[in-house]
Amino acid sequence: MSPTITAFESSPDRGGGLSRDVRVRWALEEAGQPYDVRLLSFAALKQPGHLALQPFGQIPTYEEGDLTLFDSGAIVLHIAERHAGLFPEDPNGRARAITWMFTAVSTMEPPIVEHGMMRIFESGQPWFEPRIAMIEQRVRTRLAQLSARMGDADWLDGAFSAGDLLMISVLQRLRGSNLVDEYPNLAAYVARGEARPAYQRAFAAQLAVFEASQAG
Amino acid sequence: MSPTITAFESSPDRGGGLSRDVRVRWALEEAGQPYDVRLLSFAALKQPGHLALQPFGQIPTYEEGDLTLFDSGAIVLHIAERHAGLFPEDPNGRARAITWMFTAVSTMEPPIVEHGMMRIFESGQPWFEPRIAMIEQRVRTRLAQLSARMGDADWLDGAFSAGDLLMISVLQRLRGSNLVDEYPNLAAYVARGEARPAYQRAFAAQLAVFEASQAG
Repeated sequence: MSPTITAFESSPDRGGGLSRDVRVRWALEEAGQPYDVRLLSFAALKQPGHLALQPFGQIPTYEEGDLTLFDSGAIVLHIAERHAGLFPEDPNGRARAITWMFTAVSTMEPPIVEHGMMRIFESGQPWFEPRIAMIEQRVRTRLAQLSARMGDADWLDGAFSAGDLLMISVLQRLRGSNLVDEYPNLAAYVARGEARPAYQRAFAAQLAVFEASQAG
Repeated sequence: MSPTITAFESSPDRGGGLSRDVRVRWALEEAGQPYDVRLLSFAALKQPGHLALQPFGQIPTYEEGDLTLFDSGAIVLHIAERHAGLFPEDPNGRARAITWMFTAVSTMEPPIVEHGMMRIFESGQPWFEPRIAMIEQRVRTRLAQLSARMGDADWLDGAFSAGDLLMISVLQRLRGSNLVDEYPNLAAYVARGEARPAYQRAFAAQLAVFEASQAG
């Protein structure tokens, strides 16, 4: 039985690929696992039916038989554990891939999201200029550390893994700033991820949803 | 062979228990697993020796034979997979516990850390008052959603799990504000976690390290 995920009926970035269902679509594509999608309006996200599945009123969720999961990181991990292609075979390599998964969403992503939210919600505030410079510096510190660790490697630790999938998805959120471009090895890393056929299929699938919502 | 973790020689919160090694100590105590600790000065965190283990210059790390991990969430997951007491037996329950682990560090913790960092680094800025109110509201939204989901349950999903361990550790970071106290079931939840003997041992161990650093 195919799992069912939830996604935005009309993504806030207009099919730009930053909605977090893309991480799950990408993982499912890497795993060669077909899936169904249930689309939700913004209003439906905050209604009891969805909150029973996702207490924070967000997408994506993942339903498979009597299992319901939420949080894109946890869903990607679940997929990686059950299918080949997202974790190395050896247990130590798998544990290191999981380290990178957590690092992506809890060390790298928070300042990057803070940067993005400031640009959306605080651009008219008198403190915008000094404060965004402070947050950019916080982001640069993390990018510089990641860049130093990667050096000229293709992926974070050996072959492509679920850790790379989440890390690249997080770095993509800086699109619209030039911050990643300041670190050529990170810019190349993001491009390498986006060139993967599984990513391309995931991106196309979410874009098709958005385009259908506009045509309706 | 016991694993070795790293911790602050002198914790920034003076043994208050918010350093992230406490999460790992707590997990090891729940699992009944002895461990060794290597203490690091603030200067040592940023030196090549430590950066080779932890590219972001943070604690904790976890070394066990030829495996090195970092990120407290990933380390807690590694411990939970290898010892009884932190994950339910059934695979679906385990997947849900992992969902709560990711939710703790990537949905709940970022606005809570943002709130804490503003209080430390921006309290003298002219924008402090209006902006902290905005961040408090962001934190309250998450607390209210978590409170609604928990209702009168003791733990997030059945028995205590690694998901509760991380969630309680994240909520503890709001100590010093009254935000958790606005949600009596969450305040009781944190107290329930802190009352566990394994937590008490973990807290005492890190406090002893801080006290020794002051006596030196």
